[in-house]
This record gives sequence, structure tokens and C-alpha cells, in this order.
Amino acid sequence: MTKIAVDALGGDRAPEEVVAGALEAAADGIEPILFGPKGLETGGLELVETTQAIGMDEKPADAVKAKPDSSLVAACRAVGQKQADAVVSAGNTGAVLAACFLELRRLPGVARPAIAVVIPAENRPTVLIDAGANADGRAEHLLQFAYMGSVFAQEILDVPNPEVRLLSIGEEPEKGNQLTLEAHELLAAAEGLDFRGNTESRNLLLGAADVVVCDGFTGNVMLKLTEGTIKVVLDALREEIVASRRGRVGGLLVRPAARGLRRRLDPETYGGAYLLGLRGLAVIAHGNSSRRAIANAIRLAARGVEHDVVGRLAQRLPERVLASARSETPGK
Amino acid sequence: MTKIAVDALGGDRAPEEVVAGALEAAADGIEPILFGPKGLETGGLELVETTQAIGMDEKPADAVKAKPDSSLVAACRAVGQKQADAVVSAGNTGAVLAACFLELRRLPGVARPAIAVVIPAENRPTVLIDAGANADGRAEHLLQFAYMGSVFAQEILDVPNPEVRLLSIGEEPEKGNQLTLEAHELLAAAEGLDFRGNTESRNLLLGAADVVVCDGFTGNVMLKLTEGTIKVVLDALREEIVASRRGRVGGLLVRPAARGLRRRLDPETYGGAYLLGLRGLAVIAHGNSSRRAIANAIRLAARGVEHDVVGRLAQRLPERVLASARSETPGK
Repeated sequence: MTKIAVDALGGDRAPEEVVAGALEAAADGIEPILFGPKGLETGGLELVETTQAIGMDEKPADAVKAKPDSSLVAACRAVGQKQADAVVSAGNTGAVLAACFLELRRLPGVARPAIAVVIPAENRPTVLIDAGANADGRAEHLLQFAYMGSVFAQEILDVPNPEVRLLSIGEEPEKGNQLTLEAHELLAAAEGLDFRGNTESRNLLLGAADVVVCDGFTGNVMLKLTEGTIKVVLDALREEIVASRRGRVGGLLVRPAARGLRRRLDPETYGGAYLLGLRGLAVIAHGNSSRRAIANAIRLAARGVEHDVVGRLAQRLPERVLASARSETPGK
Repeated sequence: MTKIAVDALGGDRAPEEVVAGALEAAADGIEPILFGPKGLETGGLELVETTQAIGMDEKPADAVKAKPDSSLVAACRAVGQKQADAVVSAGNTGAVLAACFLELRRLPGVARPAIAVVIPAENRPTVLIDAGANADGRAEHLLQFAYMGSVFAQEILDVPNPEVRLLSIGEEPEKGNQLTLEAHELLAAAEGLDFRGNTESRNLLLGAADVVVCDGFTGNVMLKLTEGTIKVVLDALREEIVASRRGRVGGLLVRPAARGLRRRLDPETYGGAYLLGLRGLAVIAHGNSSRRAIANAIRLAARGVEHDVVGRLAQRLPERVLASARSETPGK
């Protein structure tokens, strides 16, 4: 059975929704192990008792160092020590990253681990990488993200030869900021990548590529903007509909369709994001996760374990990543 | 009458839709002056004959220099020479920027002109600045954008004391990339600005602030992502609806509501974006503009002229902008 270490105190609705989500995932034959305080009501799931908690607003690096027996750090450590196969947390994203960096070392040759999110685009699922692990990035990092995203799309999404595009503000190679101009050059020259050039953000949900590469600031802005926009549009539509009798009747009739759409595009459906580039697997769930989102995040982690994402990255990355590291401008 | 110089050859649907849009705006008592080739069918509007055209794919700076008698450059020059009050173009955005920089000089003290778009957010219209004039920016530039956006919101949106927020990847001051961390410090210390801290992209359409400040790369990504996401959601909803008989009947009933929403959020409704920081007014319309979008862009330009946006910026910026320029780290 796949063992998933779950940070029971991570997230705005912890521990209740986290425990409920873990129980839901357990029904699928996954083995969640909860990390949390003594006496936590777990509904029969295994509990590893921890004595500390990291709040949503604590400074990530400091909190992680100061609290080695927090539910988050202990859950990450369990993966580092092979007592669990992956970790899931809906806690403070910065703290989750810091705890993972501390307890799960980087894969050889990886300069910067990155967050990969599978966006439910129209024609095909799209891997967006980096969705927020690195606020600042260099072109060489974006090249590594492209390789990691590409291996991930092959292994998890079963795309034999993933198309990779660079997110920029124009499709022509010469459009973009300093970072994307440099990254475009590196990507165009890279071996073993099916690089198809730039794409613009307007195409993200249309399935612009199998893998869309960007720096973590831009990726995080895009992820949150997509979520926010979908919510605003569907809420506004509901308001317009209930404003007239005719609309209200129609609204009842289209409700199943709207629900289906909301479900497809809802971040709760995909549950969480993978943190790639480490020697262990981590899934970062939304801070506001409900039990359904937590259950889906745990399922996502289990799927990553079954597909041996970490092993595949370790096997297939080093050669490429090292090659790209060698191409770095010295002293840069 | 307000005279608006219109680049008849700018945009994917030029010149037909541009001329039709100009005619539509003329019916409102605005005086569009078309810039285009001899013999262009203008429906009775004034034509200034030009002999050159700049294509959507030409390199902006080169094209503008090489083609002084292009419809775009001539239209900008007319504003620089006070023969028209503002210019509107749906052409190659880079070329529009380059032509404006060439023919309309910068206001004293302004380091970087910026694109301001009024986003139709839920609670209040929101000025997003910079939406794409500068692919790379420094913290001092973001501070100037904040001042320009703030004066703009006061003059055009009638907000007495506009709330300004910085777009970042977390609401806490210490969250963001190098650029936003530095900009946050400058904004927090700035006088004459009602700076309320960071905001995240998920709040953009909820009316996060009267003015949201960011670098031009991020702003352009957000603008295009918002447009793309709204389109995908409404199209997907339509598909879900027509997939069942019940949905189809309901769809007919909610159609007016969906149309109202689409109209409110459609970029064609707001028509275009202001380029601020120059001694003349320019409105940049969407490359794919229909006649309705062109007409709205011309109306937008006319409104800017009526409110004397350039004069107000000139009056109210220098002191602040110069103060912020003085605060720049020397040699940076």
C-alpha cells in the first residue's frame, strides 16, 4: 500500500477537513498517515504524534528551523527517512517548501526544485512549471524546469513527446523580458526537448502546449488569476441569472451544466501541485482545501508514487540537467 | 470638437472595421481623422493621406524609423504637432509604443511611460498599470506607475483618494520577487499615495484596489490571461449547455444574462488602453478590434481629452515623480 504522510495541521480548515479528506482517500486503498497532536480524532487512521505546529503566517525558514517536531516538518522527514512514500500539506506554502528542502534533498544536478501544476486545459492537460517555488529565476533554471516538466508529462500524463512552450508576452522569439529572451535562446538550443517557441497567457486554458514554462512569480500569478477569474465569472453569471424570473427558470435548467464546468475547472478537483526536483515526492494543497481537495491531493500524491515520478526524474534528468548546468555563464 | 487621429491601417481587421468604428464614434460628436492611403473609402470622414504601412509583424523600432509617412507614425505626429487631440491605433503594440515615444515626448520627470487599462472589476473599476509598455522594470518605475495610476483614477474614474496596491504573490510585504520587495518599500515610504500593501492576482476582478501596480510583463500576462479565461469559461459553459435538451432550453432562457456578462467583461467594451506619461494622449486598441471596439477606443480617447488627462498628469506629477527619481539609488 502507498503510504502518504499527511500534515494534519496544515491549511485553513485543519485539522477537521484534513482528517476527513484522509479518510476519504483511505477508502481508495491508499494509506494516509496523519501527523498531528496527541489525541487528534483520526477515525482509525494511523497517527504520528507531533508536538509543534506552524501557523499560516509564520516566516517559513525560521518556523521550519525552530519547529523540528511540527506536524509539517515531521511529515516531510518521514518521507526523507523512507517511512512514507510522499507527503501532502495544505499549510503555509513557503513553510512547506522550506520543510521539503530541509528534509528531502535535491536530486543531483537540480539547481531549483519547482512546482508543477496540471492545468485542466481544453484540448489537453497542461503542466505549468514553475507555479511558485522560486520567486526569482534565471534562464538556466527555466531550462531545468522545461526538462522536469517534460519528464513529468511523459510519466504522469502519458504524452510520448511533450510539446514545451515558454510563457511570454508575444509569440515571436524576440518578445518578452530579459529573462524570457535568454530562456528562449537556451530552450531553442536544448537537446531532447520538443520546444515549440513562446506562448501567450491567453492560450493557457486552450491547451497551448503539454508543458508551459515560466518563472515562479509569473506562474503563481497566473495560477491564482485563473482561479479568481473562473470564480468571478461563474458567480457573476449566477447573479445575472437570478436577477430575472426568466433567468431563474433557465438557471435551474442549466445548473447541471454549470456544475460540471465548475467541477472541471475547480482547483479542488486537481487537488494540489507537485514539488519536483527533490529525492522525495511532495504535494502542496491549496490553503483553503476542503475534505474533497485534501482527498484529491492525497490521490495525486499516490499517483505520483505509483508512477515513480521521483525515480524517473532521477533516471532521466541528470544527463540533461548537468548538460544545461554546464552551459551556464560562469560567475552569473 | 475633439479631434482623434485614427491609424486606419492598424489592426487585423483594418481598414474596413477601423473606418466603420470611426464612423460610429463620429455619430457621438467626436471628430475622427483617418490616416491612411489615398483613395481609402472613409464614408465622408477627413482623410490625411499617407504612403506607408507598418505590418503587425514588423520590428517596432526599425519600422517606425524607416516609415515616417506610415499611417501610424503620421497619426502620432499629428498629436505631437497639436493637429489632433489624441491618437488611436489597433496596430502592432510595439510599433504604437515606438511611434508614440518618437512623436510625443515624455512628460518632464517621467522615466517610463506605462499602459493603463481600466479593468471592469466587481466592486469598482480598477486601473491596472503597467499593462505592457515595459517588459522589464525597476522598483522606481513601479513607484512612478503608482503615481500616474493614482492621478488617472482621480481624474478619469472620479475617485477622490485612490487606494493603491502592489501586485505580488502574497499579501505580506515580505512576499514577492526582488522587484516587488523593493517596490513595496518605496511605495510604503511614498508621500501622497494611499498605499494599502500587496494584493494577489486572484483579487484583480474583485476590485482589489482602485489602482493595481505591476511591471509590464506581469501586467500584460494578467490582461491576456483574464481575457482568455473569461472566453474559455463562457465557451465551455455554452458547450455544456447545448449537450442536453434540458440544458438547451435553459440556455435560451439564460442567454440575455450571459450576454450581459460577456459584454461587461469583454475587452471590446472598454476598447483600449491609455498610454500615460507622454505629452500627448494615445489609446492602444486590441489588434483584433471590431468596429465596436474601435468606436469604444475612440470614445475612450475623447474622454481622456475632455478630462485633460495629459494636462492633469503634467500638473500633478512632476513634483512627485521628481521626488521619486531623486530617491533612486545612484548608478543603479
